[in-house]
Amino acid sequence: MSKIAVINPNLSEGFTRKVGDQARSIVGVNTDIIALNPQFGPASIEGYYDEAFASVGLLSVIRDLEAAPDHAANPIGGYVVACFDDTGVDAARCLTSAPVLGLCEGALRMAAAVASRFAIVTPMPVSVRPLEHLVAKYGAASQCVVRAAGVRTLDFEGDGADAAYHALKKQAKVSLTEDRSEAIVLGCAGMTDIADRLHADLGVPVIDGVSAAVKMIEAMAMLGLRTSKVGAYASPPLKTYHGMFAGFAPQG
Amino acid sequence: MSKIAVINPNLSEGFTRKVGDQARSIVGVNTDIIALNPQFGPASIEGYYDEAFASVGLLSVIRDLEAAPDHAANPIGGYVVACFDDTGVDAARCLTSAPVLGLCEGALRMAAAVASRFAIVTPMPVSVRPLEHLVAKYGAASQCVVRAAGVRTLDFEGDGADAAYHALKKQAKVSLTEDRSEAIVLGCAGMTDIADRLHADLGVPVIDGVSAAVKMIEAMAMLGLRTSKVGAYASPPLKTYHGMFAGFAPQG
Amino acid sequence: MSKIAVINPNLSEGFTRKVGDQARSIVGVNTDIIALNPQFGPASIEGYYDEAFASVGLLSVIRDLEAAPDHAANPIGGYVVACFDDTGVDAARCLTSAPVLGLCEGALRMAAAVASRFAIVTPMPVSVRPLEHLVAKYGAASQCVVRAAGVRTLDFEGDGADAAYHALKKQAKVSLTEDRSEAIVLGCAGMTDIADRLHADLGVPVIDGVSAAVKMIEAMAMLGLRTSKVGAYASPPLKTYHGMFAGFAPQG
Amino acid sequence: MSKIAVINPNLSEGFTRKVGDQARSIVGVNTDIIALNPQFGPASIEGYYDEAFASVGLLSVIRDLEAAPDHAANPIGGYVVACFDDTGVDAARCLTSAPVLGLCEGALRMAAAVASRFAIVTPMPVSVRPLEHLVAKYGAASQCVVRAAGVRTLDFEGDGADAAYHALKKQAKVSLTEDRSEAIVLGCAGMTDIADRLHADLGVPVIDGVSAAVKMIEAMAMLGLRTSKVGAYASPPLKTYHGMFAGFAPQG
Amino acid sequence: MSKIAVINPNLSEGFTRKVGDQARSIVGVNTDIIALNPQFGPASIEGYYDEAFASVGLLSVIRDLEAAPDHAANPIGGYVVACFDDTGVDAARCLTSAPVLGLCEGALRMAAAVASRFAIVTPMPVSVRPLEHLVAKYGAASQCVVRAAGVRTLDFEGDGADAAYHALKKQAKVSLTEDRSEAIVLGCAGMTDIADRLHADLGVPVIDGVSAAVKMIEAMAMLGLRTSKVGAYASPPLKTYHGMFAGFAPQG
Amino acid sequence: MSKIAVINPNLSEGFTRKVGDQARSIVGVNTDIIALNPQFGPASIEGYYDEAFASVGLLSVIRDLEAAPDHAANPIGGYVVACFDDTGVDAARCLTSAPVLGLCEGALRMAAAVASRFAIVTPMPVSVRPLEHLVAKYGAASQCVVRAAGVRTLDFEGDGADAAYHALKKQAKVSLTEDRSEAIVLGCAGMTDIADRLHADLGVPVIDGVSAAVKMIEAMAMLGLRTSKVGAYASPPLKTYHGMFAGFAPQG
Repeated sequence: MSKIAVINPNLSEGFTRKVGDQARSIVGVNTDIIALNPQFGPASIEGYYDEAFASVGLLSVIRDLEAAPDHAANPIGGYVVACFDDTGVDAARCLTSAPVLGLCEGALRMAAAVASRFAIVTPMPVSVRPLEHLVAKYGAASQCVVRAAGVRTLDFEGDGADAAYHALKKQAKVSLTEDRSEAIVLGCAGMTDIADRLHADLGVPVIDGVSAAVKMIEAMAMLGLRTSKVGAYASPPLKTYHGMFAGFAPQG
Repeated sequence: MSKIAVINPNLSEGFTRKVGDQARSIVGVNTDIIALNPQFGPASIEGYYDEAFASVGLLSVIRDLEAAPDHAANPIGGYVVACFDDTGVDAARCLTSAPVLGLCEGALRMAAAVASRFAIVTPMPVSVRPLEHLVAKYGAASQCVVRAAGVRTLDFEGDGADAAYHALKKQAKVSLTEDRSEAIVLGCAGMTDIADRLHADLGVPVIDGVSAAVKMIEAMAMLGLRTSKVGAYASPPLKTYHGMFAGFAPQG
Repeated sequence: MSKIAVINPNLSEGFTRKVGDQARSIVGVNTDIIALNPQFGPASIEGYYDEAFASVGLLSVIRDLEAAPDHAANPIGGYVVACFDDTGVDAARCLTSAPVLGLCEGALRMAAAVASRFAIVTPMPVSVRPLEHLVAKYGAASQCVVRAAGVRTLDFEGDGADAAYHALKKQAKVSLTEDRSEAIVLGCAGMTDIADRLHADLGVPVIDGVSAAVKMIEAMAMLGLRTSKVGAYASPPLKTYHGMFAGFAPQG
Repeated sequence: MSKIAVINPNLSEGFTRKVGDQARSIVGVNTDIIALNPQFGPASIEGYYDEAFASVGLLSVIRDLEAAPDHAANPIGGYVVACFDDTGVDAARCLTSAPVLGLCEGALRMAAAVASRFAIVTPMPVSVRPLEHLVAKYGAASQCVVRAAGVRTLDFEGDGADAAYHALKKQAKVSLTEDRSEAIVLGCAGMTDIADRLHADLGVPVIDGVSAAVKMIEAMAMLGLRTSKVGAYASPPLKTYHGMFAGFAPQG
Repeated sequence: MSKIAVINPNLSEGFTRKVGDQARSIVGVNTDIIALNPQFGPASIEGYYDEAFASVGLLSVIRDLEAAPDHAANPIGGYVVACFDDTGVDAARCLTSAPVLGLCEGALRMAAAVASRFAIVTPMPVSVRPLEHLVAKYGAASQCVVRAAGVRTLDFEGDGADAAYHALKKQAKVSLTEDRSEAIVLGCAGMTDIADRLHADLGVPVIDGVSAAVKMIEAMAMLGLRTSKVGAYASPPLKTYHGMFAGFAPQG
Repeated sequence: MSKIAVINPNLSEGFTRKVGDQARSIVGVNTDIIALNPQFGPASIEGYYDEAFASVGLLSVIRDLEAAPDHAANPIGGYVVACFDDTGVDAARCLTSAPVLGLCEGALRMAAAVASRFAIVTPMPVSVRPLEHLVAKYGAASQCVVRAAGVRTLDFEGDGADAAYHALKKQAKVSLTEDRSEAIVLGCAGMTDIADRLHADLGVPVIDGVSAAVKMIEAMAMLGLRTSKVGAYASPPLKTYHGMFAGFAPQG
């Protein structure tokens, strides 16, 4: 059995359940999915400010999982950060030697393999620049554009979900024509359940970050790939942390 | 059951067997691996000239697989081009709507998730620039260097295999120090069986392109991802092909 | 006398004649033009799939020319690959030590010397991304955009030629305004005879790839420049080729 | 009077005092410097993991300053994040409309105005890749290299300070020769007091991030420049924060 | 006292007075502003041709200032080239060891600290490409676009000033929407007096190059930063200059 | 007859004669070469400062040629700026509608067609960064490195010529190994006569900028290509020039 932890760094348990269900529906029979969210932090992640807090929540979940009594016997083989901003991924790679993947990275890798140009459609304009920075970091700037649907992240849950879907679809269609996009990447974990509908409506590949990242980390875990502990993702050097973060001090 | 075709575009049946065995050893119980090579073309692929011929061989294998009587009933869910030069991948994506992945692309995607900087070590100097072009195409130019071990591709099979291994390991070690590499990518399909040994010797992640690409395409196939048929990978427009290539004419 | 081979890698003899005539009309009195096409392969080149086959045809023509009895006495001083996709140029540079130039490379070099920004207008949308990759490879991404006229390559020959011209002119005009283009590059060998008309209609420089590449290779041949045989364009290492490609095996 | 807050995001009060003193020694007579550090978080910042926690501490200080009773009457005109990793700068720009600058950004801007190529010398290897990402983000990748001296950040305080200085100077000298650097940027807030010594020893400009960022933010504050509240740095949208971060919930 | 020379490289004394006044209104009480223009050259600077002549005029002013009898006793601490094309800045950095800054460089540095994306609006289309080259040189290509208002530079002085303002504002507004710009940079020294009006009209930060560059050079001068004399900005090697430029011969 | 003007922008008549002779030795029988230099300016061009003055000299020669009585009847078909810094090329393109090419641009275009990686070897270290900026501007940054031989430009004339040659050859050889260069570009007009010797010594292509630029401009002139007068190279708008530059005022 392989164990994959899917961590929603925001506090929405609806999101957590949704991404957990989606993850379970796509992994192999020998893969066990744990879906969790932190106990503190923002209700949703929209822009740089929310990210700063969600990163700490994410790290707290990883720390607790790796400190659990059964961890040595049944370690986690990989982590998915179930947020399209890839919140805290670099820090998480320092904390654990299991591989860590965010939704944006997972989705861009699969999108680039099925389309020469593509668009990320994200809910809020405030996320466009953070996502453009991720796109550049992942080396996809010459083939990926980012568009915002102009809806809130949580609109994809509850009564406004259909209106949110249509706002998203509209931007996706515009992108197929004006940006010559050949595929659409869903730019938010909360959209994981609309991929099939959008694919049916548009006729081009639609990449859901949850699915992409979960399957990719499952693949990496099966191969036994571990994060390099030389260089940027080395374990953080031993030091003191103070105040409410004392419990996060690196053990060196 | 999911069916993955691993196509070695060169004529070395030893390579084909080796990559097929490696692929079978890592896929899930519900994945079936077919390992094939073309019936014509170069014995190995080292540089641009060999690639031109191997591309056609690759396309011939895909064409034949998709024209086989059982294809409709039991279609191939994804193709791996088992060559680190990603020979013919773009053309193959036009020919089939199943996803297609080369070893370089698969390996770079996984390497970038476990290391912030890394090196490809390839057998021959003649491959360095073609690989640097792939690295740039895949957006990894700021984090990946390419080094050559100075041995022939086929040296990794047979008597010279140990000497070839040591030449490779030497370049990998130099890269850890001089390039600040944090992981090593094996730059040739023929090295698939030395990943564990090199990992044990160096203590950093070693990414084998065969394993990376096979697991990634298996993941994509399970998600039902298909190559976009809008834009760059659209089916080739109907036209006449002449002479010995007449049988390759696109059906539109 | 200097001898330049202009090789149309598709099978259209009309194209071959047209580019040969254009080449002859612009070279110096001491330059001899040979215009040829392969005996097998696609009727036209539109996208990655056609390119794979046309590359082999191109190499067959070069091989035969260099194996001809009079080659030693009267060698070819340079090759033009008369296709705007620069099909097989890298492989050809490995095969011969005479300089080799594709239409795209030749046209971009001259366009960049007379305009600070410019556009390539190509017939089919399927060619846009392959051309964008060439533009990036040649380092012109910050000054060159690619647009498609939405017509077939062969439409520039025969009855539809005038309609094809107007579709092309429309995109060119849009580019002058919306992209701030200062010159237009004709993105297909088959357009070589409309450069003057388009220049007259638009009043900006119009660069025809056939003319640009032929004159540039003529210049290089006169200077005695040869392709470097160190590194990426080294002669392909000796090896066996099998089946219908046996005759292309490198001689080392 | 203009008021500038210099926030050391780590918990070292020695650092805070040092950067505060340096800031006070260089600002104009009408500029008031407040030097602060958070009450919780890491003792020093070395790599991505420490950054995640220090970001929250930084935001807590800004929040408290802007909630203070005298803020409306005597607002802070600009913030310096006194860490060379520019920890939390993007999030801070969302929280306040006063301009915010990290040491790296400030230093790179002044370095680029006095040298065509330069090097950042930072204490620990673990910081090299995070700094290379900053250098790329600030658009200086073609003119700036990053080197590590191989000492701990806190070594620049106390008994080991002289040894740390010599390790730093050694890398700086190597960079002048091997990287053709024309100036040296001190890659850590804790080095602020050695700039003059290094300049005297090397004879090239030495840029201290504390000085550069403080003077640049003072200049921006005097001009009345404010962070744009349209786009990436818009005030975070109203939402609930839970648990120990409840007090950081955006007010919309 | 610190002395800053603001040099308008064109011959418009109106411009010189305007930029001098603006500079004096923003510097500290201990900073002395000298505003000058050359005695020969173009009346305004619009494009590459004007720049070539204005560069020499600029250098003549610096040479004369540094040769003045009181220079040793009361040296100039920094130079602002009061032209948004940063005319002659690299050459000026070779001539003097005081720091030299152009308006474009100063404005881009401050804009990037308050906005994630922004636009330069310049008077004439002929300046767009030169400014795009500066933007690329300063590493801001991924966050800055350039637009032209379609008016003459000198239109911002005199009767047409209001019409010029409205043409500028129109392009700025378009950029906020279509380019997702978050701030506007005034792309001409002659616009220095409209920054407040445009800011009031648009509600986003408006960066005036004169103010940005003057404050930044004042900051650098106070820190004692000097241009590196190793590498690109080394003093020009001793040699003979002939004819009307004899007086500019480097002293080695 | 076609007439090409080769303008050496420095005052060395030895250089002018040398580049004129080289140009005449390579052009076709129907091409007439005029080799000129300005009557004022620097004796050689080494770095940004010399460039500023040489640009004006260059423009004076073009202006005088185009104002000559026989110009209308027998116009100049193209200009070569015979300096490897491409001094004043952009301004010259505004002044004339004949095509203008610098040595660096011409050499890089031919080098890129015969080698996948190459090096420029230039005399003085002060020229390295200006040349790196040209390399980036021409889009060759990923395939071209710049090295300095550590000799003066004028050393290639007279007694020290042999020592200068050996210093150059040494850097070229280092580059073949350490930079994996496949060809060498001579980074100075004054080296035009050593290309054959270096090619014989090193066995790789050696590209002389004079030859490359002259042949390329001859090719462009024969094709009737003219500089675009829309956009960056538009004729400079009508305005007044003052003082010693009054005679250079644009005629609109």
